[in-house]
Amino acid sequence: MSRNTIAFVTDFGTVDPCVGVCEGVMRNIAPEAHVVHLNHNVSPHSIPEAIFNLFISYNYFADGTVFCWVVDPGVGSERRAVAAKFKKEDGKIGYLVAPDNGIMTPILNHAEVLEAVILDNPEYQLDNPSNTFHGRDIFAPAAGHLANGIEISKLGSPIAPKDLLKLDLPMPEYDQANKSWSSTIIHLDRFGNLVTNLRTSTLGTPLSDWSVAINDLEIEQVSNTFADVAIGEVVAYPGSSGFIEIAIRNGNASEILNVKREDSLRFIKN
Amino acid sequence: MSRNTIAFVTDFGTVDPCVGVCEGVMRNIAPEAHVVHLNHNVSPHSIPEAIFNLFISYNYFADGTVFCWVVDPGVGSERRAVAAKFKKEDGKIGYLVAPDNGIMTPILNHAEVLEAVILDNPEYQLDNPSNTFHGRDIFAPAAGHLANGIEISKLGSPIAPKDLLKLDLPMPEYDQANKSWSSTIIHLDRFGNLVTNLRTSTLGTPLSDWSVAINDLEIEQVSNTFADVAIGEVVAYPGSSGFIEIAIRNGNASEILNVKREDSLRFIKN
Amino acid sequence: MSRNTIAFVTDFGTVDPCVGVCEGVMRNIAPEAHVVHLNHNVSPHSIPEAIFNLFISYNYFADGTVFCWVVDPGVGSERRAVAAKFKKEDGKIGYLVAPDNGIMTPILNHAEVLEAVILDNPEYQLDNPSNTFHGRDIFAPAAGHLANGIEISKLGSPIAPKDLLKLDLPMPEYDQANKSWSSTIIHLDRFGNLVTNLRTSTLGTPLSDWSVAINDLEIEQVSNTFADVAIGEVVAYPGSSGFIEIAIRNGNASEILNVKREDSLRFIKN
Repeated sequence: MSRNTIAFVTDFGTVDPCVGVCEGVMRNIAPEAHVVHLNHNVSPHSIPEAIFNLFISYNYFADGTVFCWVVDPGVGSERRAVAAKFKKEDGKIGYLVAPDNGIMTPILNHAEVLEAVILDNPEYQLDNPSNTFHGRDIFAPAAGHLANGIEISKLGSPIAPKDLLKLDLPMPEYDQANKSWSSTIIHLDRFGNLVTNLRTSTLGTPLSDWSVAINDLEIEQVSNTFADVAIGEVVAYPGSSGFIEIAIRNGNASEILNVKREDSLRFIKN
Repeated sequence: MSRNTIAFVTDFGTVDPCVGVCEGVMRNIAPEAHVVHLNHNVSPHSIPEAIFNLFISYNYFADGTVFCWVVDPGVGSERRAVAAKFKKEDGKIGYLVAPDNGIMTPILNHAEVLEAVILDNPEYQLDNPSNTFHGRDIFAPAAGHLANGIEISKLGSPIAPKDLLKLDLPMPEYDQANKSWSSTIIHLDRFGNLVTNLRTSTLGTPLSDWSVAINDLEIEQVSNTFADVAIGEVVAYPGSSGFIEIAIRNGNASEILNVKREDSLRFIKN
Repeated sequence: MSRNTIAFVTDFGTVDPCVGVCEGVMRNIAPEAHVVHLNHNVSPHSIPEAIFNLFISYNYFADGTVFCWVVDPGVGSERRAVAAKFKKEDGKIGYLVAPDNGIMTPILNHAEVLEAVILDNPEYQLDNPSNTFHGRDIFAPAAGHLANGIEISKLGSPIAPKDLLKLDLPMPEYDQANKSWSSTIIHLDRFGNLVTNLRTSTLGTPLSDWSVAINDLEIEQVSNTFADVAIGEVVAYPGSSGFIEIAIRNGNASEILNVKREDSLRFIKN
């Protein structure tokens, strides 16, 4: 197991050097670390987006990867800064460094947390940490030290995994009377494709048995991929993150259908 | 020759972790690989932009670099996923991993393809590849394995270089009667500078012998660089990619002259 | 001291492969170099932004880091391309490669320049450098060679540190009659937080002794961090870069207060 990869997500944006300063701090501590920048355009303060980003990416990283996830509307308040060591379903080990504001939810739901700490040991922070940039002063140093191979217990006081904040994520609901699933749009990608929170496997029967109702539109073309329909047509299909997605082939479904994040939709048995 | 650099271009954008997930997959396979992110803001599905990006960048990378270029409007359709080993004009070797949708055109035109394969060997893909995210499931693993040093023939069935899709790019045309070249804008950079498809060398005589007509405007100031004209003035000059460019010094030529990609212009002998 | 980190800032944007081409050139010369991308969205041609980016980041990088800062409205003119070796206040060594247009100002003000050169040795440039893309042809090669460990004197003719261009930055001014400091907004971050040019230490007394007047608004809540005020309220606090900042908790102060970069504000003794 090599820990030298740090996977990094923030809502810092890319119009100033904040992200690179954090990478500088990480590499100052761990000169062999390699930082993979997953996303720094999480909507400002959006914990649900941070959670979705973690959920769809953490299984694609090597054993020992350190995940550093800083979306932190409560920076400087009493919210805790934490780190966890966890075992994934495939047996690989990961580390997650984040504010204790619900970001850990996918790990708490789908992995086994082996050990967790509050990042309260000043030896592993920058000197005189600011009140407003814990990414640089607390989270980046913790990620760097973990990438360097130290024991997680060095970083601060132990905390029981059950005391880490776990959020209730919006879940699809089945309506027995109408034989339909109500679902929520949890992500829009760059192409305007709509990601729902409904898994193909939850439906129980093939996706082609179902129609989709979203706003005033009913989508009957449910296929394996958007290449199966003509350019400009709407299609629902099993997405690459395990959730059903809605797209317009070579078009922007979010704009054309006027659908936003957190909008609801229904899957109706044909 | 070291293959540990992967040069990566996509149209995935930077609002979700897709690009970083691909880097995670590459590094999972090739822990020593170093990914250079060239551009992930190619306009969605724009194969011409992907081609231009490849054309202006591939000569600046080291011997053995693996180029992974994923702009893939046909993902999930019958279009082939391919990889090619090629020799550049300077004798250096490169690898290109891409959908077979015309992206290979600059390599087919300007380099010698030594060997090519269809990426159909499931041993070198992720398990159960999705229909919609071949970047993660097929192209990133192929790039990672090449960066690790495997023979390209391992990745799948051989394909003859002449069977790879080569697109006809828009070419400048000479009008003998009017002693003028008609040309096309093939790229707008961040500064709003307009890149044409006409090379300085094609003109035959120095650029200062020519005027430029674009929309209703005739540009007579043709110089070596935009620093030669006053701030706010229009100038045509030999650009850094070998093509003639049009700029407004310290201004945005695209906005001020209302010129877009694929607009045409003429070079007229004085 | 290891020089293998190159910290890179430009105004090239992220819609074409220019930044990655420069990284390709750097790694072609210095295969072990690791490029940290700090910011490529500096406003086109904005030397003040480039200076601010350097000022807030250079102290967070390891001994021997090569800083390559290319914001270069005068590319192709007579402005000089330069490199400097400097010693920071903490005794660490750094290298800065940049156009001689004022970008060096923070180093000239806050560090000791040990040696400086004009980048006029063609052996350490790409062949036939263009007139418009010195980032690729002159600055990236210089950064790569420095990362490779060569003596800075190899890169070109010596220049006295006092001959490097140093700009007068806007400084806060004290008005004795009104017991107030007039200050300037020098940066807006992604969250719309306003960064002033006034240091907490300059005030002489605690920040809570002062009110802030900006446009028609007077801010009396001055606290240690924005988490101290209710959501939606305005607050002034000591920022992470050493300067006082103005924010709206979980809101965009720049938009809501209609404040832009270079706007002025006043700090008034209560």
